[in-house]
Amino acid sequence: MNTNSTWDLLVLSKSVLTMEPEAAPIEKGAVAIADGRIVEIGPASDLLEKAPTCEVLDAGNCLVMPGLVNTHSHLAMSLLRGLADDLPLKAWLEDHIWPAERQYMDRETVALGTRLAVAEQLLGGITTTADMYFFADTVCEVLAEAGMRGVIAESLIDSSTPRCATPEEMIAKQRNLCEGWRNHPLITPSIAAHAPYSVCAANLVKEAELAEEFSVPLQIHLSETRWEVETSIEHKGASPVAYLEGLGFLSEQVVAAHCVHVDRNDIEILAENGVGVSHNPVSNLKLASGVAPVLAMLEAGVRLGLGTDGAASNNTLDLLRDLQITALLHKSISGDPTTMPAATVLSAATSGGAEILGLGGKVGMLKPGMEADIACFSLNHAHTTPIYDPSSHMVFAARAADVRHVVVRGKVIVRDRKLMTMDLDEIRTRSTEAARRIQSG
Amino acid sequence: MNTNSTWDLLVLSKSVLTMEPEAAPIEKGAVAIADGRIVEIGPASDLLEKAPTCEVLDAGNCLVMPGLVNTHSHLAMSLLRGLADDLPLKAWLEDHIWPAERQYMDRETVALGTRLAVAEQLLGGITTTADMYFFADTVCEVLAEAGMRGVIAESLIDSSTPRCATPEEMIAKQRNLCEGWRNHPLITPSIAAHAPYSVCAANLVKEAELAEEFSVPLQIHLSETRWEVETSIEHKGASPVAYLEGLGFLSEQVVAAHCVHVDRNDIEILAENGVGVSHNPVSNLKLASGVAPVLAMLEAGVRLGLGTDGAASNNTLDLLRDLQITALLHKSISGDPTTMPAATVLSAATSGGAEILGLGGKVGMLKPGMEADIACFSLNHAHTTPIYDPSSHMVFAARAADVRHVVVRGKVIVRDRKLMTMDLDEIRTRSTEAARRIQSG
Repeated sequence: MNTNSTWDLLVLSKSVLTMEPEAAPIEKGAVAIADGRIVEIGPASDLLEKAPTCEVLDAGNCLVMPGLVNTHSHLAMSLLRGLADDLPLKAWLEDHIWPAERQYMDRETVALGTRLAVAEQLLGGITTTADMYFFADTVCEVLAEAGMRGVIAESLIDSSTPRCATPEEMIAKQRNLCEGWRNHPLITPSIAAHAPYSVCAANLVKEAELAEEFSVPLQIHLSETRWEVETSIEHKGASPVAYLEGLGFLSEQVVAAHCVHVDRNDIEILAENGVGVSHNPVSNLKLASGVAPVLAMLEAGVRLGLGTDGAASNNTLDLLRDLQITALLHKSISGDPTTMPAATVLSAATSGGAEILGLGGKVGMLKPGMEADIACFSLNHAHTTPIYDPSSHMVFAARAADVRHVVVRGKVIVRDRKLMTMDLDEIRTRSTEAARRIQSG
Repeated sequence: MNTNSTWDLLVLSKSVLTMEPEAAPIEKGAVAIADGRIVEIGPASDLLEKAPTCEVLDAGNCLVMPGLVNTHSHLAMSLLRGLADDLPLKAWLEDHIWPAERQYMDRETVALGTRLAVAEQLLGGITTTADMYFFADTVCEVLAEAGMRGVIAESLIDSSTPRCATPEEMIAKQRNLCEGWRNHPLITPSIAAHAPYSVCAANLVKEAELAEEFSVPLQIHLSETRWEVETSIEHKGASPVAYLEGLGFLSEQVVAAHCVHVDRNDIEILAENGVGVSHNPVSNLKLASGVAPVLAMLEAGVRLGLGTDGAASNNTLDLLRDLQITALLHKSISGDPTTMPAATVLSAATSGGAEILGLGGKVGMLKPGMEADIACFSLNHAHTTPIYDPSSHMVFAARAADVRHVVVRGKVIVRDRKLMTMDLDEIRTRSTEAARRIQSG
């Protein structure tokens, strides 16, 4: 029996970027999928011959590559997009974002904001997203229903959240989440501690233990601002990174967002402990937090992914902008335009991101045996003409709006720019209504 | 007689951003146009009542604003987009770009590359573009045919160009251009000297005289790299800016691109002479040239516009990216997220750019009496939902692909994302063929 009879989907391309190290683009390549997994990649002409009956997704004018991986976000905050711009981090959080969250972020609003964020991300070629926020069980449900892959956490902070009155309650929700979602094909439950300055040592240790118990990613904001580092040194006698190492918090399970203000010693600690760093350049620039020393981290062997952060500080979930800005920023800061080449940035946004979220070997590359998470970027545009190098195009020229089809775990979720699993008009109408309430509050 | 009978076009909106200083957005506003000019702006309901017969352009879901103004570019270089990335400026220019130009940039290829660039810019909401390149008469013809506004120059350099063997020949072409195109409704001929390091003093003086004789903008690359400034100080005993002032080159007609490496004294000189500076952040970052001290320039009263530079160093002509990066960069560098607010950036990309190109009072704002150059950005997207502040959205969330309609001088040039005056498929096919020749060369 020929293998072809079991294929469910064959994705045609103008060019396939597998993101396997050093692999050249496969011109007019195709990707064959069965049971949610990639079973074969090769010239479209060969694969078409073997697949007389399976569904064909025609992306013949597209660059076909692994779906992008967003390693840090707060999805529901999309409802606060542009609510309070051009403000410093502390005033932005304390005077605008936190009050709005306390007043409006109930379960229903989180569900709505998450749906808006999932829609935006899928339409922008992102197939896996991290999230740390409240009502994480609802966040998981939204992603599962939409068919998007997620690494989702209920966030712990030593005060109250819109959902929980005490840290103990939050930790109980975290445990429930890990138990309830541990076997879902798309959702990885996760643990998240807000930050070393907002969660006490005892609770940080509990979080690390929980993450270990369930073998799940452990998300945290780390060394985002100069204030955070100075305060840590003043009160704890150590940088936030060194402090976390002292607590035994750091491991390969840790996804540390930002790491803007890290010194040589911090970088060594991050590398030695196998910590994954989520670089969020747009958010860091917008809040004037600074620029993470990503080149030094890469040199030290730190594992790197890219993230958008929440739309309240970005103001989109368009990871391609973070790709472009990552390449531009680090060229400029190093004074060397040969640094941070397109291929490095593209790896961080795909295989690198998958690795730090604990999904390495599962997604982030197109390779037989891996799950079929695929983004097809149309190249039929003025701004993508002509093409000399597909990787360069993805980093410096392509835009989220170029996404034509998106496949997650073998299922076509976006077809011809239309979401197959969500009603965008309804989400937009309800989001606009929610924003009206938030603004008038 | 009612004024309405003479209206040619009425543009409806969800919101009109006129870009008049301090003006609030006009919700459900409309713009009435006659003979290429704006005649009235007000609530759509009022204007619709007065206009029973004129053509109505329904941008009811759009933010309607002045078309963007790109103050620095080399349009035909779009054919070299992504040809040689991740390289330093000198190697990029000398080993890749200049050889490709010498071999391939004949009149026909310049026409093709310019058409590709015009298509990309119109589809991205840019209605006015500067250009300094070769075969400028052909560039003017392409823009005039496409219906785009341009400030176009034949570039002078003290060597040869693909068109001219000697500087004298180039200057003769410049004079011809100014004489031939001085009265065109869309095209402003212009003078361009490549840079203070590549054009001798005598020729720089001639250029300033020519610009004065014809009252046209005088474009130049200025203080783009550290090398340029150090060499100038070493050989001429003055910074490039001070050197040009000494020659009497500087005036309100000058459009100085880049100005990355300018000190306090330079900034004062630029302000005193009324020089317009074109800030090109994406290109400057990509070539690792540095970041122009734009905040200091604005404080000193320097007139500012934004530019994409050529697509070979960007790699798009998507000015919205330069808006976003201008806002992000200068917040981050100043360490103060309240600096470079959205409204300031948006002004530079519209009225500011128009001013420095000598088109102030003519385009760059929506105001009765001004010419009707208008971009309509659709807000029907996940990434632009919800909306709290339209200016913030334009800088931090909107994308070139959101452009739905574009009007230049009262004529609808882009309707429902389709170019009315150009055949994009044919341009793309021919551009791909040209790239194949360039790559194999």
